[in-house]
Amino acid sequence: MKTEEKKRSRDPEKTRSLILEAAFQEIYEHGFQGVSIDQIIRKTNVTKGAFFHYFSTKSELGYAIADEILREMVLERWIRPLAAYKNPVQGILRRFKTLTDAMSDEDLVRGCPLNNLTQEMSSVDPLFRERLKAVMTLWIDETERYLKKAQENGYLKKTANTRQLAEFIVATEEGSFGLVKSMADRKIYTSLYNSLRDYLLSRAETEQ
Amino acid sequence: MKTEEKKRSRDPEKTRSLILEAAFQEIYEHGFQGVSIDQIIRKTNVTKGAFFHYFSTKSELGYAIADEILREMVLERWIRPLAAYKNPVQGILRRFKTLTDAMSDEDLVRGCPLNNLTQEMSSVDPLFRERLKAVMTLWIDETERYLKKAQENGYLKKTANTRQLAEFIVATEEGSFGLVKSMADRKIYTSLYNSLRDYLLSRAETEQ
Repeated sequence: MKTEEKKRSRDPEKTRSLILEAAFQEIYEHGFQGVSIDQIIRKTNVTKGAFFHYFSTKSELGYAIADEILREMVLERWIRPLAAYKNPVQGILRRFKTLTDAMSDEDLVRGCPLNNLTQEMSSVDPLFRERLKAVMTLWIDETERYLKKAQENGYLKKTANTRQLAEFIVATEEGSFGLVKSMADRKIYTSLYNSLRDYLLSRAETEQ
Repeated sequence: MKTEEKKRSRDPEKTRSLILEAAFQEIYEHGFQGVSIDQIIRKTNVTKGAFFHYFSTKSELGYAIADEILREMVLERWIRPLAAYKNPVQGILRRFKTLTDAMSDEDLVRGCPLNNLTQEMSSVDPLFRERLKAVMTLWIDETERYLKKAQENGYLKKTANTRQLAEFIVATEEGSFGLVKSMADRKIYTSLYNSLRDYLLSRAETEQ
């Protein structure tokens, strides 16, 4: 314990990240309301005192997960890779395929951590909702930014409403994770991918 | 209390329904893991003994909510009204519009009770998942049955894959409730409706 306390004082940022990551995993597995602070502490090597040094309540820890982990996850998984595509519509489809193909059987039935927290907590705690809404808004905003780029590059009809399309894409992606989670059937991702592809290509200037 | 006990023995089915309905509302508001049996009992007029006469555990109560309330809700809201449409594709779009228009501001941020329970509980408890999966499967199966009818009546292309389309419709509907819940913005329903309509009409034999 003493060594740990020393480590913490030497590298407080690392200790905080360690707690956040352990909490994220526990919550992903059991739900936010299904996890206690004691359970989270047991998954780390920190003391109760150290935990409360970083997060004064479980809610505060939950907000930090939204602000930091989920926000970064959306950017890393869905947004940043789009920069590499001349036609970001193809990038969006490719990300859906890549991310769903890569899911382990375990994560398949755990679904999307952002979706889980949103469905569980955003009506229970308005402050939680504000955080989750900010992450969702970022996802839609950034998707729209790339759809505009696709439009400028001639890969999307001039008449396409990019905001409407971005909202539909994010709703469909979250809906897909939700449905596959409940059906526990990987094949449904392929079915949903095919529909999303048909839809997006029907919005394209020319067949891709 | 004595009167209540008598009532219960006189009409056990009614008492059971009363507990189920109160539990459903409490869970819709606070999440399954956010509600205790004591909280549910306080919302009814039954004794603790009466409660345990009908449901031996909180999980058993949750399963009954899926098997009975959520199943009936899907049939009542999404499926049975389709029988009145010569073109069930129009019926599906109309239901989406009617149900989202009718949502109170409170329910808007509470979202879809089936979606909430699924995202919260289906990875936490495999027996819960089986129940929720059965409800979701019924929704997809019945949607597909009506899409086939639309196809037979010439309102959907012969080449349209009705299973794929049914899965996409349900995923989109659940994703829509999820997104609006997190954004707390009613206008997004209209945006998502427009996209779903464009997509379904592009699958139609002729413009509707």
